Amino acid sequence: MPKPKIKAFVFDAYGTLFDVHSVIEKCNEMFPGKGKDISGIWRQKQLEYSFLRQLMGRYTTFFEITRDALRYACNEAGAELSNETERELLDSYLKLHHYEETEEVLMKLKSYQTAIFSNGSFDMLSPLVEQSPFASLLDEVLSVDEVKQFKPTPMSYQLVLERLGVRREEVLFMSSNTWDIAGASSFGFYTAWINRQGKGMDELGVKPDYEYGDLRGILNHVK
Amino acid sequence: MPKPKIKAFVFDAYGTLFDVHSVIEKCNEMFPGKGKDISGIWRQKQLEYSFLRQLMGRYTTFFEITRDALRYACNEAGAELSNETERELLDSYLKLHHYEETEEVLMKLKSYQTAIFSNGSFDMLSPLVEQSPFASLLDEVLSVDEVKQFKPTPMSYQLVLERLGVRREEVLFMSSNTWDIAGASSFGFYTAWINRQGKGMDELGVKPDYEYGDLRGILNHVK
Repeated sequence: MPKPKIKAFVFDAYGTLFDVHSVIEKCNEMFPGKGKDISGIWRQKQLEYSFLRQLMGRYTTFFEITRDALRYACNEAGAELSNETERELLDSYLKLHHYEETEEVLMKLKSYQTAIFSNGSFDMLSPLVEQSPFASLLDEVLSVDEVKQFKPTPMSYQLVLERLGVRREEVLFMSSNTWDIAGASSFGFYTAWINRQGKGMDELGVKPDYEYGDLRGILNHVK
Repeated sequence: MPKPKIKAFVFDAYGTLFDVHSVIEKCNEMFPGKGKDISGIWRQKQLEYSFLRQLMGRYTTFFEITRDALRYACNEAGAELSNETERELLDSYLKLHHYEETEEVLMKLKSYQTAIFSNGSFDMLSPLVEQSPFASLLDEVLSVDEVKQFKPTPMSYQLVLERLGVRREEVLFMSSNTWDIAGASSFGFYTAWINRQGKGMDELGVKPDYEYGDLRGILNHVK
């Protein structure tokens, strides 16, 4: 395959730049011994609810979906969720740890367009990015909330083209989420799967163009 | 709420009339000690892949999705899947056990329209229904494959109206799957959630109209 001419490096947020499992700690603090279970169900339902609401035509913000998923997870785990605990756990989504190599990698992409493109709504995404050390290294923070279409629909990825003024084949899209990689590849982006846990790719009829163990791998594409 | 005038009783197939976990036995026979893991991942990915393919606009038949999900599950569980074992496990989907009360309940619905409405394609659904003792008690077996739209999209449920010649509010729709109940309620059917395991309802902004521990509960709606 000839090397593509990449103009924009576009990153998913949750799981890709920010570690969603850093909420486990907070869950464990709130619900001793149940933290791992709750945070696992929470994340699974957060994704599932975004997919299902998109399918049913009942879009709501990722913030509300995250709250609903938390309520379900606590109910399922037999943990009582007070309003205060709910607020505190949702707040932990605004302070997720970032993966350590992120800043170093973004520093080396200064001659390219860089953006986050996330299912998160701005009420979640803006505080998260602003508390990170790399906010100023990103040209754009794009949310599907602008078009009310969750990834992985083709219409959601279309927003990247409109906002960055690039063509599909000029985008390298990074995600740790296999469903996001499948959707972005299917749409026509070049894709790099950030496979931190060495998992197998989902069988969705599309494969990533590249696969790396962390974000440093994408520096192969920098001239 | 005034009692609705139901003309058609419509049933989901997998998990509702037929027990998908009866494949566990076969999985255990093929992969001793790993059967539960494999069948759990298999079912989870089967659902997830149908949702994701619908979202990405890459529809394929439920048979292919079921095969792809099985391949992923075996890979994930570190189990080698020969062509022969694959065929045998997929075959077990054609011979799922039905829930014991199904026949008795369908017998009492003779003065109504009755149908299965499933994400399954006919290559899976027809042999399954034909080997059951209640094939002749169903007026219709409807598959989303006719419209290439997986549940829970509104367009998928629309098929029921077209094929049965009824209005939304004349349908009582039964499913054990919460996402299916949410989709059908959102579309405008009356819904009865067959909650065999006493689980909590998913937080998707829609609730079932009725909830029963097994199919016998719907006989409340028979005049």
